Amino acid sequence: MNNTRPIGVFDSGIGGLTVVKALRDLLPNENISYLGDTARVPYGPKSPETVQRYAIELAEMLMKDDAKALVVACNTVSSVALPTLTKKFPVPVIGVIEPGARAAVSATRNLHVGVIGTRGTIRSGAYEKALRAANSNVRVSSQACPLLVPLIEEGLLNDEITDRMILRYLEPLLKADIDTLVLGCTHYPLLAGAIGRVLKRQIMVVDSAQNCARAIENMLDEQSLRAAPMNNGQLRVALTDAADNFLNVARDALQLQFGEIEIRALS
Amino acid sequence: MNNTRPIGVFDSGIGGLTVVKALRDLLPNENISYLGDTARVPYGPKSPETVQRYAIELAEMLMKDDAKALVVACNTVSSVALPTLTKKFPVPVIGVIEPGARAAVSATRNLHVGVIGTRGTIRSGAYEKALRAANSNVRVSSQACPLLVPLIEEGLLNDEITDRMILRYLEPLLKADIDTLVLGCTHYPLLAGAIGRVLKRQIMVVDSAQNCARAIENMLDEQSLRAAPMNNGQLRVALTDAADNFLNVARDALQLQFGEIEIRALS
Repeated sequence: MNNTRPIGVFDSGIGGLTVVKALRDLLPNENISYLGDTARVPYGPKSPETVQRYAIELAEMLMKDDAKALVVACNTVSSVALPTLTKKFPVPVIGVIEPGARAAVSATRNLHVGVIGTRGTIRSGAYEKALRAANSNVRVSSQACPLLVPLIEEGLLNDEITDRMILRYLEPLLKADIDTLVLGCTHYPLLAGAIGRVLKRQIMVVDSAQNCARAIENMLDEQSLRAAPMNNGQLRVALTDAADNFLNVARDALQLQFGEIEIRALS
Repeated sequence: MNNTRPIGVFDSGIGGLTVVKALRDLLPNENISYLGDTARVPYGPKSPETVQRYAIELAEMLMKDDAKALVVACNTVSSVALPTLTKKFPVPVIGVIEPGARAAVSATRNLHVGVIGTRGTIRSGAYEKALRAANSNVRVSSQACPLLVPLIEEGLLNDEITDRMILRYLEPLLKADIDTLVLGCTHYPLLAGAIGRVLKRQIMVVDSAQNCARAIENMLDEQSLRAAPMNNGQLRVALTDAADNFLNVARDALQLQFGEIEIRALS
């Protein structure tokens, strides 16, 4: 087995680069092939059947790169397509929801977890389900934060308007007395600084991207799929259509190093 | 000629309802058939060829309703598809850009006009071109306001966060000493109140939706296409996919009366 085969990471767009960043930090020896479906972003409003079909297409493109594992760095896809992908592809498939939910259940002391995400993710109830599967006694308070993605994509990561918006979204969760907050959207780790500023008291913040990376590390160890320690991991980033401004925002904020973006047309 | 044939109005989504509202107010006897392509919104990031193709599809659907005129209630489509549509369909075709540009040129005293719109509209230079075509001496200062559409779609029409964002976007235009501001996005009339609050001095605000409606009135008069004064104009609203929250925002803010939304699938 050639363990320098890449880890294939995909997302509906650019947000999944936060997972790539967490992977690079944790597993610098691994080669990573990232594919963002910028031609069809956002997936949130699309039907589960459509999202499943798109996810299979993206996974097939990464399998052509000889991916040794598939990482679904997208909450929408993770909430509807993991069983389909697991059945269809002969490599391990890992999403962002279950690792985040498990970490939150480990972190909470008062068994009251808050979840923030896009309207689609919150409406799907996917985190609530995963949190209760990890601990049936956990109480979950959820808050859709539809304006955070636009604010992030505009690069307003350290901005008083963004801080005000975050405060407005988090206030009901804080009043409800959560002690742990799950960032249930792959964009949100870019707001980790702002969220820390806004939270007035001690709340554990669970970053789904970091927990996803840890789950991948465990899986690679279990399946003896780790690249050799001398391998200098490479990152390749491909998109299905030209990137907009957000790619620069994410690259700068995450300090990710990668070469020219490859455009891989959907067939 | 049966002049109760509807005016066919289309947009990439829901924003074009501001044009419908202006039409209802100005021409209450006219029947209107609205079609919003919510399945494929937003058009901004799509190529001109794709936008032209989509526009033809939508126009064909409205022609099946026997539309007597086509109104392109969308800046993106207006900026790239008007010649194609005019050539292809045997009815008058009116967009939002030229009427707004003409009104701005009539309004400005210091010949310095500001334009706000989405990043795509501003990048296209369509308003600048139309303004200069109306008066080659006019000076144009443009500002992309990418966060206004998300704020509007979330219904934050009268909200201090929106006011702050508007102020931030308008400050450079005010410093540049514009005396007239074109709202170059069909969503923006929903912020007319907020923009009025934020503008500290006398700026003429040119609402593209209202000016588009006036252009339609003139065209109907010129071509003797007006519905009879006793006709009680009906509004029919169809979308290519289920509407999201913004439909309720727009309906409430515009106080538009219409029955159940029809979903018209794209073939």
